[in-house]
Amino acid sequence: MKLQVNLGANSYPITIEYNALANIKETINVNRKVAIITDTGVPEKWVNMVAAQCPNHFVLTFEQGEQSKCFDTYKYLLEQCIEHNMSRKDCVIAIGGGVVGDISGFVAATYMRGIDFYNIPTTILSQVDSSVGGKVAIDMGSYKNIVGAFWQPKAVIIDPQVLSTLSIRQQHNGLFEALKMGMILDAELFELFEKDDLNLETIFQKSISLKKMVVEQDEKESSLRKILNFGHTIGHAIESDCGLNTFLHGECVSMGMLFFIEDKALKERVLKIYEKLEAPQVPDYSVDTILDIISHDKKTTGATTTVVKVPTLGKYILEEYSNEQLRDVLERGPYEK
Amino acid sequence: MKLQVNLGANSYPITIEYNALANIKETINVNRKVAIITDTGVPEKWVNMVAAQCPNHFVLTFEQGEQSKCFDTYKYLLEQCIEHNMSRKDCVIAIGGGVVGDISGFVAATYMRGIDFYNIPTTILSQVDSSVGGKVAIDMGSYKNIVGAFWQPKAVIIDPQVLSTLSIRQQHNGLFEALKMGMILDAELFELFEKDDLNLETIFQKSISLKKMVVEQDEKESSLRKILNFGHTIGHAIESDCGLNTFLHGECVSMGMLFFIEDKALKERVLKIYEKLEAPQVPDYSVDTILDIISHDKKTTGATTTVVKVPTLGKYILEEYSNEQLRDVLERGPYEK
Repeated sequence: MKLQVNLGANSYPITIEYNALANIKETINVNRKVAIITDTGVPEKWVNMVAAQCPNHFVLTFEQGEQSKCFDTYKYLLEQCIEHNMSRKDCVIAIGGGVVGDISGFVAATYMRGIDFYNIPTTILSQVDSSVGGKVAIDMGSYKNIVGAFWQPKAVIIDPQVLSTLSIRQQHNGLFEALKMGMILDAELFELFEKDDLNLETIFQKSISLKKMVVEQDEKESSLRKILNFGHTIGHAIESDCGLNTFLHGECVSMGMLFFIEDKALKERVLKIYEKLEAPQVPDYSVDTILDIISHDKKTTGATTTVVKVPTLGKYILEEYSNEQLRDVLERGPYEK
Repeated sequence: MKLQVNLGANSYPITIEYNALANIKETINVNRKVAIITDTGVPEKWVNMVAAQCPNHFVLTFEQGEQSKCFDTYKYLLEQCIEHNMSRKDCVIAIGGGVVGDISGFVAATYMRGIDFYNIPTTILSQVDSSVGGKVAIDMGSYKNIVGAFWQPKAVIIDPQVLSTLSIRQQHNGLFEALKMGMILDAELFELFEKDDLNLETIFQKSISLKKMVVEQDEKESSLRKILNFGHTIGHAIESDCGLNTFLHGECVSMGMLFFIEDKALKERVLKIYEKLEAPQVPDYSVDTILDIISHDKKTTGATTTVVKVPTLGKYILEEYSNEQLRDVLERGPYEK
């Protein structure tokens, strides 16, 4: 299956195909220097499969984990691009999860003011969410994605075979972002999660198509795209507060969503799905610390914070919250009935 | 005088007015947090004049000189933006020469994936050249502008009164870029440099208008904009080779142009102007070192380098040069007759 993300001069195809990894030449011009960027968590066989198709490549591998999405890794990758004498016409291929895609995309966005970038996401999380839309970034200190750019890939290649090497926890982690899409935009997608057997293929297609639709309408996140931050305002803050690597990103989003589901019956349904997906419990937190982190978050403009709420299944509300309102939400907690 | 740079959604005004610095509110919304970025070479009175008009500002000052256009300064400025809790709706104002504009623009381009950027150039070089066009960047090692972005300012404010505090050398430095514009595009502009008295006002207007025209036709430097690199291929390499700070940027461009003026009578005229502007002599260089630096330069694609040549006054040719051709040029030297 092929989808086209329509963004004028920045349009690009998404290939979703079993064994697509063995045929990247169909999408990527590999007859130039290729920087393959990956991390230690990605099985070598996927990297080797791509590398074997690029006659003039080099591989840059950094330590797995959110702590690598930092200034030092960014600088190291740029230095390696210089070292290998990469030109403006060469390209970067990312193979990995969200961390690899985000930092590789930012390297491609800024090396020589921007070179071609291809994304091959290897986790459910990055396949259904972060690989589509061109948001690239690194963290600084405990502030996630605080430095970055909008840099659309030239193509995204999604090969379901790579999921075979993912742990169950990693798989569930990605499904929380797909569940999020259902909650705000598509009751049918949500209901797929309530079935005994998860129909992953349909869940993927639906959530990637929804992401594509939102990005096409608002590439630079000036309006509609903000709804994708559902669960992220508090989720990001918990992620930062607990130290990167305690929880996975999707797990934190699952926690963050609970604070803003207004329909109590819906929240019950969500908690049942969480049980099935083994979502971790929201840890104890200090209200002041979480508020402090949120105030640095990109969604904050001066005194208020844009939050996304779900009144009923498949619907969303964007609302400006004062610090006091956020404090109330945090004091009530995620499990309040 | 006001000019408008027409780039669709990225359009912006250039104000060229005596005392414009005292009236920035006409152009900039200062009712938000303002990061004023400058360096130790900029007289405090200009910074204070701007700061006094911004009720909620902070000033970040770094050491003057090309060596500051580096990763460490970039990181420091970003950390300060976080420290001051800058939001997506806040803005950066650069006050200074090309180094200040380039690095401040890159900070604005990447902080929270891009915030508003205003440029107040205080040298002739930055007024006639680098402040217009949205090329922002930092250096890495000896590679100039190797990491950066295209990020158009929201407005450029050019106030001729700031030139009163510039040294003669700094003034001449900037005029070489204006002379470059004349050589490739406008014989009349060139001839203004041959007059006994330099009509700075007309030189400014003509060169800024030409820059604007070129940028409008090719914002991302995929074709026409490359002609502005006249003098830069070898000039940049000499600048890197001699250590940043030995020569000024415009001085290096003046050296680089000599290699590619094909009309010998024109070269004589150019050398006479150089005498008047006290252009430094091209230093001794190692051909191999210069070639090595050029191969890393952004204009290099694989085996060839795009060079800009001037066959006769007001005309340009873009040509792909092999390494061997470049070696010949360097071996013949800049003063060959």
